[in-house]
Formats: sequence, C-alpha cells, structure tokens
Amino acid sequence: MSFRPLHDRVLVRRVEEEETTKGGIIIPDTAKEKPQEGEIVAVGGGAIKEDGGVRPLDLKPGERVLFGKWSGTEVTIDGEELLIMKESDILGVIEGSKAAKAA
Amino acid sequence: MSFRPLHDRVLVRRVEEEETTKGGIIIPDTAKEKPQEGEIVAVGGGAIKEDGGVRPLDLKPGERVLFGKWSGTEVTIDGEELLIMKESDILGVIEGSKAAKAA
Amino acid sequence: MSFRPLHDRVLVRRVEEEETTKGGIIIPDTAKEKPQEGEIVAVGGGAIKEDGGVRPLDLKPGERVLFGKWSGTEVTIDGEELLIMKESDILGVIEGSKAAKAA
Amino acid sequence: MSFRPLHDRVLVRRVEEEETTKGGIIIPDTAKEKPQEGEIVAVGGGAIKEDGGVRPLDLKPGERVLFGKWSGTEVTIDGEELLIMKESDILGVIEGSKAAKAA
Amino acid sequence: MSFRPLHDRVLVRRVEEEETTKGGIIIPDTAKEKPQEGEIVAVGGGAIKEDGGVRPLDLKPGERVLFGKWSGTEVTIDGEELLIMKESDILGVIEGSKAAKAA
Amino acid sequence: MSFRPLHDRVLVRRVEEEETTKGGIIIPDTAKEKPQEGEIVAVGGGAIKEDGGVRPLDLKPGERVLFGKWSGTEVTIDGEELLIMKESDILGVIEGSKAAKAA
Amino acid sequence: MSFRPLHDRVLVRRVEEEETTKGGIIIPDTAKEKPQEGEIVAVGGGAIKEDGGVRPLDLKPGERVLFGKWSGTEVTIDGEELLIMKESDILGVIEGSKAAKAA
Repeated sequence: MSFRPLHDRVLVRRVEEEETTKGGIIIPDTAKEKPQEGEIVAVGGGAIKEDGGVRPLDLKPGERVLFGKWSGTEVTIDGEELLIMKESDILGVIEGSKAAKAA
Repeated sequence: MSFRPLHDRVLVRRVEEEETTKGGIIIPDTAKEKPQEGEIVAVGGGAIKEDGGVRPLDLKPGERVLFGKWSGTEVTIDGEELLIMKESDILGVIEGSKAAKAA
Repeated sequence: MSFRPLHDRVLVRRVEEEETTKGGIIIPDTAKEKPQEGEIVAVGGGAIKEDGGVRPLDLKPGERVLFGKWSGTEVTIDGEELLIMKESDILGVIEGSKAAKAA
Repeated sequence: MSFRPLHDRVLVRRVEEEETTKGGIIIPDTAKEKPQEGEIVAVGGGAIKEDGGVRPLDLKPGERVLFGKWSGTEVTIDGEELLIMKESDILGVIEGSKAAKAA
Repeated sequence: MSFRPLHDRVLVRRVEEEETTKGGIIIPDTAKEKPQEGEIVAVGGGAIKEDGGVRPLDLKPGERVLFGKWSGTEVTIDGEELLIMKESDILGVIEGSKAAKAA
Repeated sequence: MSFRPLHDRVLVRRVEEEETTKGGIIIPDTAKEKPQEGEIVAVGGGAIKEDGGVRPLDLKPGERVLFGKWSGTEVTIDGEELLIMKESDILGVIEGSKAAKAA
Repeated sequence: MSFRPLHDRVLVRRVEEEETTKGGIIIPDTAKEKPQEGEIVAVGGGAIKEDGGVRPLDLKPGERVLFGKWSGTEVTIDGEELLIMKESDILGVIEGSKAAKAA
C-alpha cells in the first residue's frame, strides 16, 4: 500500500533525533521551536498554477529536509507515523547528508 | 437520486474505523485530530480557473483518500451520512488499498 | 415582478423540511448546522472574471441544491421568503430529485 | 449640481418603506438585517480591471435594487439623503417594479 | 514649492463647512461619520498596474470630491493643512459645484 | 561603505525639524502622527512584478519626500541613523524644496 | 554537508556584534528591534512566479545584508547556528563592507 500526496503536498518521515546528533544537524531538546529533520517519502503530482497547469515539485523521495516543528499533519500509514505537509513548509534540503552518516 | 458537487467540491463517504485497522491506516480513538480515511463518491465538474475556464479535478470516484478530521460539511443523502468538501481539503490518495484489504 | 440577482448571485427558495424527508435528503431538527435544500429561482448574469469578462453560472432555475444553513441573505419578494447567495455558497446539485419525489 | 460616483461605486436613493409594502418587497420593522430597497441615482464610470482597463457597471440609473442594510456611506446632496456604495454591495435588480407599482 | 503625490495618491484641500451649507452638501456637526467635501490639489502620476504599467488617475486638480471622514493623512504644506489619500478613498466627484457656488 | 536597498525599498535620511520650519512643511511637536519629511539616500533595484520582471522605482536619491511617522525600520550606517522603507510608504515628493531652502 | 534553501529562501550567518562596531553598522544592545547584520551563506533556486516559472534571487553567497531582528528560523548546521529566511526579509545589501573591515 502506498500514499500519493495531492498536488503540492509531500509525505515526510521524521528522522530520529539520535541519528542527527552525529551527522551535523543538532536539535537540543530545549529548542522546542527549531526546525526538524526528515526524509521525503513521497511527493504530490505538482502545484496547481494560476492557469490551471501543473508545476512539478522541487523535492524528490529520499531527500533530507528541514521543516518547522509545527508543520504538517500526522498520519499513520502501514503502522508508521508520517507527516503530510505542503512543499512550501519545507525550509530546504540537506545535501551530502547520507555520505556524512556513512562516515 | 444522485448528488453532483459544484465546481471543485467532492462528495466523500467516511470509511468505518474497524475496516481501516486491518488495512494499514490506523487511527486510534485518542488521536482526535489525525486525518480520516474516506472514499470519493462523486466529484465536481472542476475548479474554476482565473480566466474562467475549468480545471478537472485530480480525484476519481472510488479512490481512497485522507482528509482532515474537521474538513467538509456533513449531509445526509438517501439516508446515508456523507461529507462535501473541497478538493484542496484532500491530503492524498491511498493507492493499492483495495488489494491490501483483499490480502 | 421578478428579481434579477447581480453577477454571481442566485435566488433560492428554501424547500420545506417535510418534503425532503420522503425524497432522500433528511435534515433532522437537531442537526443545526447541516446544509439545507433549496430550489434555484433565478441566477445572475455571470461571475466577473479577472479580465472583466463574464463566466456564466453553472446553475439553472429549477435545480435542487444544497447550501450551508447560514448562507445567503433573506429577502421577501411578492410575499415569499427567499434567499440571495453567491454561486460559491452552493455545495452541489441534487439530480433526479423530481423523479424521486414522483415515485 | 450632480454627483458622479468614482469607478465601481453607485449612488442610491433609499425607497420609503411605506411604498414597498404594496409593491412586493416587504421589510417588516422587526427584521433589522434584511436587505433594503433603493433606486439607482447615478453610476460610476466602471470598475478598474487588473490590466488597468475599465469594465462598465451592470446597473443603470432608475433601476430598483436590493442592498444590505449596512451597505454604503450616507451623504446629503442638495438636501437629500443618499447612499454611496460599491456595485458589489448590490444584491440584485427588481424588474417590473414600476409596473407593479402602477397597478 | 509644490507637492507631487506618489502613484495613486491625491492631495486634497478640505472645504470649509460654512461654504458647503449653502452649495448643497450639508454635513451637520452631529453626523461625525458622514463623508467630507474637498478639492483636489494635486494627483499622483498614476496607479501601478499588475504588469508594472501605469494607469492615470480619474481625478483632476480643481475637482470637488467627497471622501470618508477618516480617510487620508494630514500634512501641512506652505502653512496650509492638506490631506494625502489614495484615489480609491475618493467616493465621487461633485459636478457643477462651482456654478452652484457662484449662484 | 554604501547600502543597496533590496527590490522596492528605499533608504531615507530624516530631515531635522528645525530645517523644515522655514522651508514650508511645518510639523509641530504636538502632531505626533503627522507625516515626516526626509531625503532619499538610495533606492532599490526595482519592485518585482507578477511576471518576475522588475519595475524601476519612481524615486531618486536626493528627492525630498513625506512618509508616515511610523513607516520604515531604523538602521545605523556609518554612524548615521537612517530609515529603510518600501516605496509604497512614501506619500509623495516635495518639489522645488531646495530652491525654497536657498531663498 | 551543505544546505540548499528551497525556492526564495536564503541561509544567513549572523555577524558578531563586536565585528560590526568598527566597520560602520552599530547596533547598540539597547536597540532591541533594530535590524541585524549577517552574511549570506546559501541561496535558494529562485522564487516561484505566478506562471510557475522561477525568478533567480538577487542575493549571492558572501554578501553582507541587513534583516529584521525577528526574521527567519534558527537552525544548527554542522554545529553552527544559522538562520533560514525569505529573500523578502532581507532589507538590503551592505556594499564595500569587506574593504571597510580591512581598513
């Protein structure tokens, strides 16, 4: 079973905080409003443009992203807790993070 | 008797929670604000574009969808409780869910 | 004497609740915020588009519609209480309702 | 002395309530928020379109109209109390009202 | 020294209330929220359109206008108290007012 | 060191109040909300249009302008207190003010 | 590991206050709401235009900028505290600041 986000929404898997402490992004427990790290699981078909056309999203499954702590809606798919949010809720992409973790 | 949603609205049948527990999407009773699962019953003729044209919706009758718990307006048609909401209230489509349920 | 709604407005006659209980749409008294059923009496000349042009409405006099309980402005024309609302306040059209009532 | 409303504004003369009780539109005193009847006295040169062009208004001097009780700005011109409001505050046009009053 | 309002702004000189009582527009002291009469002193170069072009204003210096009592920003130029407001704050133009005053 | 405002912003130097009392614009201390006079120090590259193009600003360095008392953000550049605000915060341009001051 | 801001966002490194006191921009501790100085670390791929196209940003990595004290979201990347904000939160660019600091 898979989930296809509608339009400009993306499905995100939160990255465990333990994992991030050695990769680079450190989010101390006290910083309650700092952005969180996650992995793109699925992306929608694209944002609807004013003229009714579609703009493909700039995110791909597998990318590591940062997003606001309060962004998105929680959903449980196949027993796993994920987040659905809009592409515009994504602050940016962490590049080279997989290599960093392999080191 | 049938109901034709206007423009970018869709008619949705809530899926019973019992049914979902074995398919994949689990929505515990305590999670009051988690999205709900439903089935598209009918879709409107399309969203009105800025130039007055029409953009056909990206949802089809029979598709399984997730939507916010507080989305839509309740209506009773032919004795059945359904929901009318906008396409933009639909978070995404659950694909392969029928097969999952048949397994 | 007749009334011509301006632009994207429609004139609606509320359908008596007794009538609806046997046709299909049931709106119990306790459900204060459920949509109501009505009949389109007259439609405006069309919605004004961004370029100043006109988009004809997607509703016709005689159609049965659902609308939010709090939508529209009440007006008395020729002694009859009617409602003026925008096309976008109409949730959808009940098709085949006349046949249903004839059965 | 005459008054030319700017752009998409119209100048409206309130119709006395006595007059309306026998023509068709009845607005009982208790219904404080029901729309009021009036007569278009003058119309602006047209609504400004997004491209800077002008869309002529769909109202003409002499037409009987309904408008929200709280719409418009009161102004006294040549000793007469009138209302200036936007075309979009006009709910619709009462047609055949003069004939109705002549009967 | 002169003042050039920017874009869609106009410079307005309030007309003394004494003067208006005999011309036609009467604004009693008790009507605190009725529009006020004024004279256009200068107009901006035009409203900026969506495409970046300019739409010339529909007001000319010397015209008598009505505007909301609370519209505009007070400014003192060459010792005279004037008002700067947007063209859209002007309700309309009083035509033939000079003749009326000459009578 | 110089400062380049971004897009449709301008950098403004407040004009001392002493200076203005003899030129023409008088802003008494008691009128706390009256606009203030200033001089354009630098202008941004232009406003971003809807199509992504750029509209050059209608202000030039050296021009005397009026702006709302509460407009803009204070910044200290090279020890001097200046203001950064949007072009749309500028009410208008005082022309001939240098000549007035030379007199 | 690097961070790629999405669309019209930029990644900014706050400049230490000690450093600024001798270059030109002085931000006293008491001025809590004055803009802050920073350095652009990375810029997004561009702002999404209405037609779905992309407008490249007007900022480049290495540029010194001013931004509102409360702009942006704090994030820690590779142990360093940075800020993610929108291009429109940037007030302007300080030019020649490196030379000023070398002096």
